[in-house]
Amino acid sequence: MRLYTRSGDQGKTRVIGGTRDKDDIRIEAYGTCDELNACTAKAAAVLDDALFPDIAGELRRIQHELFDCGSDLSSIKEDAEWKMGCESITYLERRIDIYTEEAPALQRFILPGGTTASAELHICRTVARRAERQITTLAKMETINEEVQRYINRLSDYFFAAARIVNHRLDIADIEYKRSAVVFREGHNKE
Amino acid sequence: MRLYTRSGDQGKTRVIGGTRDKDDIRIEAYGTCDELNACTAKAAAVLDDALFPDIAGELRRIQHELFDCGSDLSSIKEDAEWKMGCESITYLERRIDIYTEEAPALQRFILPGGTTASAELHICRTVARRAERQITTLAKMETINEEVQRYINRLSDYFFAAARIVNHRLDIADIEYKRSAVVFREGHNKE
Amino acid sequence: MRLYTRSGDQGKTRVIGGTRDKDDIRIEAYGTCDELNACTAKAAAVLDDALFPDIAGELRRIQHELFDCGSDLSSIKEDAEWKMGCESITYLERRIDIYTEEAPALQRFILPGGTTASAELHICRTVARRAERQITTLAKMETINEEVQRYINRLSDYFFAAARIVNHRLDIADIEYKRSAVVFREGHNKE
Ligand code: B12
Ligand code: B12
Ligand code: B12
Ligand SMILES: C[C@H]1O[C@@H](n2cnc3c(N)ncnc32)[C@H](O)[C@@H]1O
Ligand SMILES: C[C@H]1O[C@@H](n2cnc3c(N)ncnc32)[C@H](O)[C@@H]1O
Ligand SMILES: C[C@H]1O[C@@H](n2cnc3c(N)ncnc32)[C@H](O)[C@@H]1O
Ligand SMILES: [Mg+2]
Ligand SMILES: [Mg+2]
Ligand SMILES: [Mg+2]
Repeated sequence: MRLYTRSGDQGKTRVIGGTRDKDDIRIEAYGTCDELNACTAKAAAVLDDALFPDIAGELRRIQHELFDCGSDLSSIKEDAEWKMGCESITYLERRIDIYTEEAPALQRFILPGGTTASAELHICRTVARRAERQITTLAKMETINEEVQRYINRLSDYFFAAARIVNHRLDIADIEYKRSAVVFREGHNKE
Repeated sequence: MRLYTRSGDQGKTRVIGGTRDKDDIRIEAYGTCDELNACTAKAAAVLDDALFPDIAGELRRIQHELFDCGSDLSSIKEDAEWKMGCESITYLERRIDIYTEEAPALQRFILPGGTTASAELHICRTVARRAERQITTLAKMETINEEVQRYINRLSDYFFAAARIVNHRLDIADIEYKRSAVVFREGHNKE
Repeated sequence: MRLYTRSGDQGKTRVIGGTRDKDDIRIEAYGTCDELNACTAKAAAVLDDALFPDIAGELRRIQHELFDCGSDLSSIKEDAEWKMGCESITYLERRIDIYTEEAPALQRFILPGGTTASAELHICRTVARRAERQITTLAKMETINEEVQRYINRLSDYFFAAARIVNHRLDIADIEYKRSAVVFREGHNKE
C-alpha cells in the first residue's frame, strides 16, 4: 500500500462527505484534536503505569474518544450519526471530582510543572484549550456535534486535575503563582 | 555580539527582501516550520541512535531541509532562487515506501503512542500538518515555492511511517482505534 | 470545590472585567502564554538542576512572569494596573548577554537540538514566538500593556541563548545549518 496519495499537494483534501481547503477551520479543529491525541500519547508514555494505573487507563480511553471527536468534526454529511455522547462527559466529571477531592485544597493559580509527567499533562491541558478555541469558531459557522465542544472543555479540566494528582502522589507540592489572588472558589459554580 | 536588536518590539520584522508585520501569514508559516524543526530535534534527542541509525540520519537531514523551507518562505524577492527541490520529496517517498513495507499491514487508524520516541514522531506529524495548513493559506495569497508545500505534506506521512517503525522494531504493537472503519486502502491511490 | 463550572460550554468565557468569545484573539494570546508556561515547566523538569542552577532558577522566575503576562492580557478594565514592568526585560537582556558571552561565537543558523533539555528550550523559543505573533494582532486592535510584547520578544532570544548554553556546558557542539549564510552580525544592532 502507498501511504501517500499526493492528492492533497495543492491544498485541497477530503472530509467525510465532501472536499475542503486544507486551511478550512474544520480541518484546523480536527487537526488540533489529532495534535492533542499525540500529546496525550506522550503524557501516557512518560507516566509510571504502576503508580498511576487509573490515569493511564483514562488516557487510553481519552485517546479513543479524541478519535470520536475527530470523526464527528470531519463529517459534513447531513445525516451524520455522532460518535461522541454525553456519557463521556459525565465520566470525565466524575474523575475530576474524585481527583479534586484527593488533591490538596486549591485557592490560587499554580505553576505548571513539578514532575515531567505533570508538565506533560499541563501541555495537554493547554492544547485542549487551543482545540476548544478553534471548535468555538467552527461552531459559529457550521453545524457540529455540541457534545464535542463540551467534552473538550471538560477535558482541559480533567488534565488539570490529573496533573495535580501526579505531583501529589509523589509528594511534590505544586508551587503557587506568587502574585495570584484567591481565584478558585466554590461560589464560581453558580455563574 | 548582542543577540537581541529590540527592533521587533513593536510588531514589525524583516523578511528576506523587505519588512512585514509579525502576524503576517508568511511569518506564521515559517515560524511553524521553525517550531517543527524544534519538535524534530526533540524526537531525535529521545530516539536510540544505535537501534535506529536510519531514522536518526533522516531526522538530521530533515532539520536541514526545514531550514531550506524556512528560507524559501521567508523570501519575498522577485528573483528568489529556491532552495527546496523535488529530490527531497522523492527521497521522503522512498523512505515511506520502505517503512510501510517493513511495518505490519495497516487497515484502521491507530492510536498515536506506545514508546516515547514514537509519540514524539506523532507530535512531529501533527505539527507538520499544522504548518501545511498555514502554507495553504499563504499560497492562496502570495507566490511561494510549491515544492515546499509538497514537501511538508509528504513529511507528515514520513513521520507517520517512522513512528510505526519505532514501535514495530521494539515489538510494541500499535493499538487500533476501536471504532475505526477500514480506512487505509490501496484504492485510495487513484484519487 | 467543583473545578468545572460548565459555564463555558457554549463558547463564551470571562476575562477580568467582562465576557468574551473563547475564540477572541485576546483569549488566544493568553491561552498561548499558558501553553508556553507548560512548555517552560517541561524544559525545567528535564533540566539537570545541579548542572544548571542558574537556568533552573531563571525558568522558575519566567513561569511567574508568564502569569503576570497572562494577567495583563486577560484584563479589559479601563483602569488596569499592569503587572509586567520593564525590569523583567532588563533582567532577561542581562542574562542573554552573559550567555552569549559564555557560548562560542555565532555566525550561522544552528539546528535546534543536541541534548533533550536544549531541544525543549528550542521548543519554548518557538512557542514564545507564536505567542508574540498573536499578541501583535491583539495590540493592533485593543489596548495592551506594551511591556508584555517586549518581554515575550526578548524571552524567545533568552530561550535561544539558554539552549546554546545547555549544549555548550555538556561539550556538545551545535550543528550549523549547512546552507546558511553568515546571518548573525554585530551590525544588525543598528537597525
Ligand atoms: C485570567 C484567568 C486565567 C488565566 C490566568 C491568567 C494569568 N495570570 O496568567 C489562565 C488562562 C492561565 C487561567 C487558567 C486556569 N483557570 Co482561570 N481564570 C481566570 C479569570 C478570568 C481571572 C482570574 C484572576 O486573575 N482574577 C484577578 C482577581 C484579582 O480578580 P477576582 O478573582 O475577581 O478578585 C477580585 C474580587 O473578586 C476580590 N476577591 C479576590 N479574591 C477574593 C477572595 C474572597 C474570599 C473574596 C470574598 C473576594 C475576593 O478581590 C479582587 C479585586 O479585584 C477567572 C474568572 C474570574 N473572572 O475570576 C478564571 C478562573 C479562576 N479560572 C478557572 C479555572 C478552572 C482555570 C483552569 C483550571 C482551567 C484549565 N482547565 O486550564 C486553569 C488553572 C491554571 C493554573 N495553572 O492554576 C475557574 C475556577 C473555577 C472555580 N471553581 O473556582 C475560574 C473562576 C473561571 C470559571 N468560572 O470557570 N485562568
Ligand atoms: C477523517 C480522516 C482522518 C482523521 C481521523 C478522524 C478521526 N476519527 O479522528 C485524522 C485527521 C486524524 C486522520 C489522520 C490520518 N489519516 Co486520514 N482520513 C480521514 C478521512 C477523511 C475519513 C476516514 C473515515 O473515518 N471515514 C469514515 C468511514 C466510515 O468512511 P469510508 O472510509 O468512506 O467508509 C465508507 C465506505 O467507503 C465503506 N467502507 C468502509 N470500509 C470499507 C472497506 C472496504 C474493503 C470496502 C469495499 C468498503 C468500505 O463503508 C463506509 C460507509 O460509509 C479519509 C478519507 C476518506 N474520505 O476516506 C482519510 C484517509 C483515511 N487518511 C489517510 C491518511 C494517510 C492519514 C494519516 C496517515 C495522515 C498523516 N500523515 O497524519 C493519519 C493517520 C492517523 C492515525 N493515527 O492512524 C489516507 C489513507 C491513504 C491510504 N493509502 O489508504 C486517507 C484515505 C486520505 C487520503 N486520500 O490521503 N485522517
Ligand atoms: C529568515 C530568518 C530567520 C528564519 C530562518 C529561515 C530559515 N532558513 O529557516 C528563522 C525564523 C528560523 C530565524 C530564526 C532565528 N533568527 Co533570524 N533571521 C532571518 C532573516 C530575516 C534572514 C536571514 C537569511 O537567511 N538571510 C539570507 C542571506 C543570504 O541574506 P543576508 O544575510 O542579507 O545576506 C546577503 C548580504 O547581506 C550578504 N552577506 C551575507 N553574509 C554576509 C557576511 C558579511 C560579513 C558581509 C559583509 C555580507 C554578507 O550576502 C547576502 C546576499 O544576498 C534575518 C534578517 C535579515 N534580513 O538578515 C534574521 C536574523 C538573522 N535572525 C536573527 C535572530 C536573532 C534569530 C533567532 C535567534 C531568533 C529567536 N529568538 O528565535 C533565531 C535563530 C535560529 C537558529 N536556529 O539559529 C537576527 C540576528 C541578530 C544579530 N545580532 O545578528 C536577525 C539579523 C534579525 C534581527 N534583526 O533581529 N531567522
Ligand atoms: C480560566 C480562564 O481561562 C480562560 N479560558 C476559558 N476557555 C479558554 C480556552 N479554551 N483557551 C484559553 N483560555 C480560556 C477564561 O478567561 C477563563 O476564565
Ligand atoms: C487524512 C485526512 O486528514 C485531513 N487532512 C489532510 N491534510 C491535513 C492537514 N494539513 N491538517 C489536518 N488535517 C489534514 C483530511 O481530512 C485527510 O483526508
Ligand atoms: C529572525 C527572524 O525571525 C522572524 N521573526 C521575528 N519575530 C518572529 C515571530 N514572533 N515568529 C516567527 N518569526 C519571527 C523575522 O523574519 C526575523 O528576522
Ligand atoms: Mg474551560
Ligand atoms: Mg497529507
Ligand atoms: Mg524576536
